[in-house]
Amino acid sequence: MSESVYKIIELVGTSDLSWDDAARSAVETASVTLHDLRIGEITKLDMTIEDGKVKNYRARVSVSFRLEG
Amino acid sequence: MSESVYKIIELVGTSDLSWDDAARSAVETASVTLHDLRIGEITKLDMTIEDGKVKNYRARVSVSFRLEG
Amino acid sequence: MSESVYKIIELVGTSDLSWDDAARSAVETASVTLHDLRIGEITKLDMTIEDGKVKNYRARVSVSFRLEG
Amino acid sequence: MSESVYKIIELVGTSDLSWDDAARSAVETASVTLHDLRIGEITKLDMTIEDGKVKNYRARVSVSFRLEG
Amino acid sequence: MSESVYKIIELVGTSDLSWDDAARSAVETASVTLHDLRIGEITKLDMTIEDGKVKNYRARVSVSFRLEG
Amino acid sequence: MSESVYKIIELVGTSDLSWDDAARSAVETASVTLHDLRIGEITKLDMTIEDGKVKNYRARVSVSFRLEG
Amino acid sequence: MSESVYKIIELVGTSDLSWDDAARSAVETASVTLHDLRIGEITKLDMTIEDGKVKNYRARVSVSFRLEG
Amino acid sequence: MSESVYKIIELVGTSDLSWDDAARSAVETASVTLHDLRIGEITKLDMTIEDGKVKNYRARVSVSFRLEG
Amino acid sequence: MSESVYKIIELVGTSDLSWDDAARSAVETASVTLHDLRIGEITKLDMTIEDGKVKNYRARVSVSFRLEG
Amino acid sequence: MSESVYKIIELVGTSDLSWDDAARSAVETASVTLHDLRIGEITKLDMTIEDGKVKNYRARVSVSFRLEG
Amino acid sequence: MSESVYKIIELVGTSDLSWDDAARSAVETASVTLHDLRIGEITKLDMTIEDGKVKNYRARVSVSFRLEG
Amino acid sequence: MSESVYKIIELVGTSDLSWDDAARSAVETASVTLHDLRIGEITKLDMTIEDGKVKNYRARVSVSFRLEG
Repeated sequence: MSESVYKIIELVGTSDLSWDDAARSAVETASVTLHDLRIGEITKLDMTIEDGKVKNYRARVSVSFRLEG
Repeated sequence: MSESVYKIIELVGTSDLSWDDAARSAVETASVTLHDLRIGEITKLDMTIEDGKVKNYRARVSVSFRLEG
Repeated sequence: MSESVYKIIELVGTSDLSWDDAARSAVETASVTLHDLRIGEITKLDMTIEDGKVKNYRARVSVSFRLEG
Repeated sequence: MSESVYKIIELVGTSDLSWDDAARSAVETASVTLHDLRIGEITKLDMTIEDGKVKNYRARVSVSFRLEG
Repeated sequence: MSESVYKIIELVGTSDLSWDDAARSAVETASVTLHDLRIGEITKLDMTIEDGKVKNYRARVSVSFRLEG
Repeated sequence: MSESVYKIIELVGTSDLSWDDAARSAVETASVTLHDLRIGEITKLDMTIEDGKVKNYRARVSVSFRLEG
Repeated sequence: MSESVYKIIELVGTSDLSWDDAARSAVETASVTLHDLRIGEITKLDMTIEDGKVKNYRARVSVSFRLEG
Repeated sequence: MSESVYKIIELVGTSDLSWDDAARSAVETASVTLHDLRIGEITKLDMTIEDGKVKNYRARVSVSFRLEG
Repeated sequence: MSESVYKIIELVGTSDLSWDDAARSAVETASVTLHDLRIGEITKLDMTIEDGKVKNYRARVSVSFRLEG
Repeated sequence: MSESVYKIIELVGTSDLSWDDAARSAVETASVTLHDLRIGEITKLDMTIEDGKVKNYRARVSVSFRLEG
Repeated sequence: MSESVYKIIELVGTSDLSWDDAARSAVETASVTLHDLRIGEITKLDMTIEDGKVKNYRARVSVSFRLEG
Repeated sequence: MSESVYKIIELVGTSDLSWDDAARSAVETASVTLHDLRIGEITKLDMTIEDGKVKNYRARVSVSFRLEG
């Protein structure tokens, strides 16, 4: 049957370089166990701060994957 | 103890007929493994398009189910 | 005087067929007592679920009607 | 160069049958002049009402298309 | 490598006392299986009503936990 | 006919104790004239302040009730 | 008993002069039947257009009034 | 065929007098080339400031017009 | 160094004439101590009501100013 | 002159008891230096978690105070 | 006459490097045909994913340009 | 006493390199006078454009700091 159902999960990636890298990290970690990811949507960006410096960029990413039928 | 805790998950159903059918599909798929679903809330509606025609209606549905204690 | 004042109310229609039908039901019920409705805006869509099936589609509809001066 | 730029436009489709049909109508009209549409996102649903009946279902649809480089 | 990835889940706690207690209940239930929770964000508050009285306060709580790498 | 239509109204309860109590107050007042209320959703929380102290907690609550057909 | 409960309603005022005047019109009309209004919050501003000219400014206003206990 | 499709565009009108006048200006400019505009919705209001004084009121207005079929 | 940092603050202006005048008042008061303001964004409009009449129009305005380095 | 200008600030109160208490704490701290506070609006509720238990309830509160003219 | 009217359009830039570069690409493409762009506002960030890797960063950018009078 | 109160302020950092750098700049500037910053949340991203090129990336950042008791 041609109907597909997908599940959406939300991950937070972290990086001391950039939000681009933080989001990439979340996607690549998710891809180890979830196959066929297509789109990652950013739902929040923030930073952790330590001693007056940015310690980590954090990107919240929403991804969907197909449920095996 | 009378306190219950529920978990919320988000699914995307697809259908070439309608959003009503896409959402129905997501709920029925979820019900195979999750029991006692009560409410499904629509959080997004969109369509995939192919060759200038609507290929699939997609409905993002948020459902909650009781965690076994 | 040409100034008109309108009141906005919110209704929820239900249907076991579709959201289109649920919203139509809310509008037609409202029209029994409120005249000259022009626009109905959807503010929420959800479903009730029973035994793993969609029982009712529910559409929350915002309508406005002119207050008699 | 592999960089692509897309433009997003918003259309409103109307139908006396359903929102599914209203959105389909907007997409098919857009496809006459815009090629390679992929996704249509619903940003608003409402209805026009006449004599206490739903006259038209209206679906606001956001679509993107690639700018020729 | 210092990059961490977190997953976000949403729970609903219930209590016949207060929203504070409902949220506490969700967090403590989640902590049985998920370690090192740090922050719980409230995304919705509502109540169930029975016979004209508040039966349960319900708090929707979003929590994140570190994925084991 | 099995189609039901509901009306949604918004109330504000007040209490010098807590938001839980303010919301309870709104629900119980509404229940005097409206029967079969099921869910109350919080749409806003604020406080009145007098002489540097919280005077009243206020909870805005949205409830729905079935229209008699 | 010192607990008060308020009801919130939404009105739309119209004026061919300005949104200030449209909102004033809604408040003054509401005040004929509802006493002790304190605050009116704007939730939407729009205009009707006829023959390429603004015909009416419309202001959606949310007001609350105390329910008699 | 009775199905109509509309396009939505967003304009910003400016005026040194008021937001009412800024929005009127956007609508009248749009009407030179777009016919049969019916509603203009305000999506943002701001001001430019120069030397500590308001220089221009700016109103962002969303309007729709029928696509010729 | 060419990097600048700005601070954003939110003010509420009041006027018995109009929201335009209320926002103008907030901007001019802010300009007495803050120099080089460029843009004021409206984040809320409301009114105080007394004896069934609008007493004051209130405009919440967000402005930014450059921090001296 | 009768025009008043207010400034809005946002505080976060914390309490190990409840959100009601956390918000009360923020208001009373603000009142030490800011006089004539009238309303405190809740803009966010969350919790800190330690060892699987709620450590602190946190309430983000927006308050306004009159600028001395 | 000193009144100006602006039009707002939304573009999506793509880049395999970063969102900064994706947005820059959208702005530079728009600038080929639209002159005097001043501000680009980000309204959405997402990524396309292929074989478990980020393929493209995509930035949705809203820009305004003056209509020739 | 263990209750702490925090204040939230919003800053805008600018950079000709990236949003990551713009946000870093805002945080480091704030840290000169505000100690013990922990989290910076992004509330808006935009760009200034000059001669068809991105001149500056701008990141609006919300940070909180503890009020000395």
